[in-house]
Amino acid sequence: MNYKSVNFQQKFGLFSEQWLPKVVAEMNDYQFKVVKLLGDFIWHHHKDTDETFIVVEGDLRIDFRDGAVRVSTGEMFVVPKGVEHKPYAEHEVKLLLIEPRGVLNTGHAGGDRTAANDVWI
Amino acid sequence: MNYKSVNFQQKFGLFSEQWLPKVVAEMNDYQFKVVKLLGDFIWHHHKDTDETFIVVEGDLRIDFRDGAVRVSTGEMFVVPKGVEHKPYAEHEVKLLLIEPRGVLNTGHAGGDRTAANDVWI
Repeated sequence: MNYKSVNFQQKFGLFSEQWLPKVVAEMNDYQFKVVKLLGDFIWHHHKDTDETFIVVEGDLRIDFRDGAVRVSTGEMFVVPKGVEHKPYAEHEVKLLLIEPRGVLNTGHAGGDRTAANDVWI
Repeated sequence: MNYKSVNFQQKFGLFSEQWLPKVVAEMNDYQFKVVKLLGDFIWHHHKDTDETFIVVEGDLRIDFRDGAVRVSTGEMFVVPKGVEHKPYAEHEVKLLLIEPRGVLNTGHAGGDRTAANDVWI
């Protein structure tokens, strides 16, 4: 068979738009998504699942109602399910998201920042 | 609250032994494990789950019965469940593994290369 790895920087080179996650791989019922972030997102939570952030390049801040965490290149953070959070990137961040298939980027909040789901690249 | 990210290179700096995965984070019932690889592992498969390999540093080869894949720094590969595989690292590889809690490194094969499970670092 013809096996092929996923190269994150190669995937990031294929698009420029921000806040629109794109699936690059699946593990069981979980998806790996690359996304570019810049500026502020909205407050939201995911009531049924944790959500993993791995920063491929840049400095991400995730705000919580009672604090914040900085996640930089080569670092990861898992936002626990049900915890309200708001990502913020002063400069563009290249991010790998891991979460179950079907999870929306805006969680419970919805609204016009909601991205199409299950878009592959 | 006091939130803290996981820095992969900081974790790799805490140990030198190879082939002994150490848990650094959990997402739902999945675990993120750092592990150093050098040389040959054994043929095995995981009958109930896919297994994700993300190379933090180095060049990994994963052999299959019908081919092989190279996974280098900044790349990932998901080994499908039930597929026999054998990791090989000519030089030391720093790897992030993602798989459900309870999965053993040697899968169905067992034997003396089996590492203790659920060891955190």
